[in-house]
Amino acid sequence: MNYKIELSSEEVPKKWYNINADLPCELPMPKNSEGRNQIEDLQKAFTKAALDQEFATERYIKIPQKVRELYMQMGRPTPLFRAKRLEEKLNTPAKIYYKREDTSPTGSHKLNSAIPQAYFAKKEGVERLTTETGAGQWGTALSLACSLLDLDCTVYMVKVSFNQKPDRKNIMNIYGGEVFASPSENTEFGRKVLAENPDHVGSLGIAISEAMEEALNNDNVKYTLGSVLNHVMLHQTVIGQELKTQLEIANEEPDTMIACVGGGSNFAGALYPFIKDKLDGNSDTKFIAVEPSACPTLTEGKYEYDFGDSNGFTPLLKMYTLGHDFVAPSVHAGGLRYHGMCPQISLLAHEGYINPVTAHQRDVFNAGIQFAKCEGIVPAPETTHAIKAGIDEAIKCRQTGEEKTIVINFSGHGMLDLKGYANYFSGEMPNSK
Amino acid sequence: MNYKIELSSEEVPKKWYNINADLPCELPMPKNSEGRNQIEDLQKAFTKAALDQEFATERYIKIPQKVRELYMQMGRPTPLFRAKRLEEKLNTPAKIYYKREDTSPTGSHKLNSAIPQAYFAKKEGVERLTTETGAGQWGTALSLACSLLDLDCTVYMVKVSFNQKPDRKNIMNIYGGEVFASPSENTEFGRKVLAENPDHVGSLGIAISEAMEEALNNDNVKYTLGSVLNHVMLHQTVIGQELKTQLEIANEEPDTMIACVGGGSNFAGALYPFIKDKLDGNSDTKFIAVEPSACPTLTEGKYEYDFGDSNGFTPLLKMYTLGHDFVAPSVHAGGLRYHGMCPQISLLAHEGYINPVTAHQRDVFNAGIQFAKCEGIVPAPETTHAIKAGIDEAIKCRQTGEEKTIVINFSGHGMLDLKGYANYFSGEMPNSK
Repeated sequence: MNYKIELSSEEVPKKWYNINADLPCELPMPKNSEGRNQIEDLQKAFTKAALDQEFATERYIKIPQKVRELYMQMGRPTPLFRAKRLEEKLNTPAKIYYKREDTSPTGSHKLNSAIPQAYFAKKEGVERLTTETGAGQWGTALSLACSLLDLDCTVYMVKVSFNQKPDRKNIMNIYGGEVFASPSENTEFGRKVLAENPDHVGSLGIAISEAMEEALNNDNVKYTLGSVLNHVMLHQTVIGQELKTQLEIANEEPDTMIACVGGGSNFAGALYPFIKDKLDGNSDTKFIAVEPSACPTLTEGKYEYDFGDSNGFTPLLKMYTLGHDFVAPSVHAGGLRYHGMCPQISLLAHEGYINPVTAHQRDVFNAGIQFAKCEGIVPAPETTHAIKAGIDEAIKCRQTGEEKTIVINFSGHGMLDLKGYANYFSGEMPNSK
Repeated sequence: MNYKIELSSEEVPKKWYNINADLPCELPMPKNSEGRNQIEDLQKAFTKAALDQEFATERYIKIPQKVRELYMQMGRPTPLFRAKRLEEKLNTPAKIYYKREDTSPTGSHKLNSAIPQAYFAKKEGVERLTTETGAGQWGTALSLACSLLDLDCTVYMVKVSFNQKPDRKNIMNIYGGEVFASPSENTEFGRKVLAENPDHVGSLGIAISEAMEEALNNDNVKYTLGSVLNHVMLHQTVIGQELKTQLEIANEEPDTMIACVGGGSNFAGALYPFIKDKLDGNSDTKFIAVEPSACPTLTEGKYEYDFGDSNGFTPLLKMYTLGHDFVAPSVHAGGLRYHGMCPQISLLAHEGYINPVTAHQRDVFNAGIQFAKCEGIVPAPETTHAIKAGIDEAIKCRQTGEEKTIVINFSGHGMLDLKGYANYFSGEMPNSK
């Protein structure tokens, strides 16, 4: 049998899918907080293209040929694999497929948005991009994208991840990115946080504030974000569009689709094109969003207006949130430690189109090891959340006898996160928050 | 254009190619040293299948269906990529292709031999496999292969690499492998070396001695080797056979083919099927073997009988060697620090079928960074040697105007070797020996 389904370079999608066109009810718009004008700031911080795409309502947006070319040169389309050995190990009648975003040169799906963001910035005459990174995946992707498009790149990396993962800094340096541990002394906000607590471990929210501050104070600098916002989500839909073609080739209709969620980008990218079918009334697929119990935004957060960052630089967004001053415990899945959630995903979850679940840290690492021993690839700590939920679903099928088709978005590999696994083996890893 | 050439699972080769059938003159046989019987020891240490394949003279050996299945499940065939951006950067008329063995779950070509070695051992009733590892690539691959075939696995890792690369131990642990820094206290030979020099940094030769000693002293334990010997080389020829099909699809005849050499396994695997054509008189392809200037076996070694390990456990092999007591400086390309060379490669080099060259450490890391910035993937330190030579060849084409087709075997990625790059950036890396 064919264990992998590959597409040729030419099958890279020609357009991005924009879920704004198909939402089941009106999306609450971002708004300024009292006495401030963050929307204007946002307009200054982001590229024009990012803002246009953020509020676009067309269903499909054309991918510029140069961006498609770079997608191809960086190896897209990514393969779809059948986890036959894992199925046998679990003794399940279910079929498990996984979409291999780890095959990107930077090891995760993040390059899918980094490339177009760098492309549009270059086109608008920008010289340097700033950003934040949690686990390091987004910063790595943006560093490479800036190298591909001949831009400078500055990355604020959440301090706890910076310290846990020196190799992340190394790889960003290889691509030419400059990396600072956040909170840093570079920005007014960073200095303020450090003055209050010199040992602050950082958070995505703080790093966002620092990166945005630089863009607000420099004309040739723009800020980029690797998740949460709609323009990022739509860039990522190349994953789900490829996946549709691949599942057609495999002659499969997915019963359950699973992705981990931090800000929402790999979830949206892989699942939006399928959620569209459900919104159109043409599908019964169940969509599972898996978050760490240490940062249970969709499952325990409130659906309300909140800042996207810690400092109130961003407008208020209507979303599930744990509060913009929430600092998640320093679990290894640094990419899932965000207090908020993409507004569109929040709305879809609120309307019942998405099933959110949580998973404990020891359990997800255990699932990751089980997966690696069967399928070979070591998943990123973030990705192990999706795998845990996939294994749970497959075990349910063993009990019910259902031959479900389960599709997991394998968002990234764990080659730069092996310390998390060492921590698991040492017995020092707590199971919960 | 199509930047990658993929093959389907079913196109995994059905047989291994054995160069023993086509050598241009008789291969000098292994022999015992005076008063000892290492050949008998070898027969005890290895599986029967490994020994049979070692001395086989059939041109093709059937790949068992279960092994083919595991090759497929672990993602073979691997893709062939065109390095279009690197070509443009170098402003060369040459076309550069690279065969992506880094896409293996363990990140290098080593799994190609680990799987059949574990398969044959299981079939012969073996319970545990031992081995040595330098850079860690072979030990990682054998750990996964043992997990796939339900065997125990013990890895002796050269101490300098063990200390430089804690993540290598972590990943082997994920797959269930047990890892010891060599020289260790586990074996008589390890204890002897440590007694003489407690700070010994280790060598592949010492690690081989330790792993073999365990197999000689335990009936249910067999020793495996990840390079040098013919049965390993022939397992690796799945690379070159796939590559032939892919180059046919691309409508290319390679002018220059390049691989790095330590013991010779990625070189042999990728190039033997093409060297066959040259031996048959049907090809003018130039075959470049790149070694570190710190361990210049083919370029400065002698072609003579020497032990394969440091202790004289192995028979004497006729090969290029720097002497079995040679300890290479601790360069980051741990997989290329071996004093000897595969006897068949040695013979082919001696007869003029292979062009060996050396490269300096700073130069190869520089080439690796240049590659990563264009093509995205960060190469392993070993692989950077092949890339350096590929870039040199492409630059020559710029000067001569020749539109050569250059094919590089991209033996592995550097995700677990980023400290080497950090060392390069710090300016602390010496350029030569």
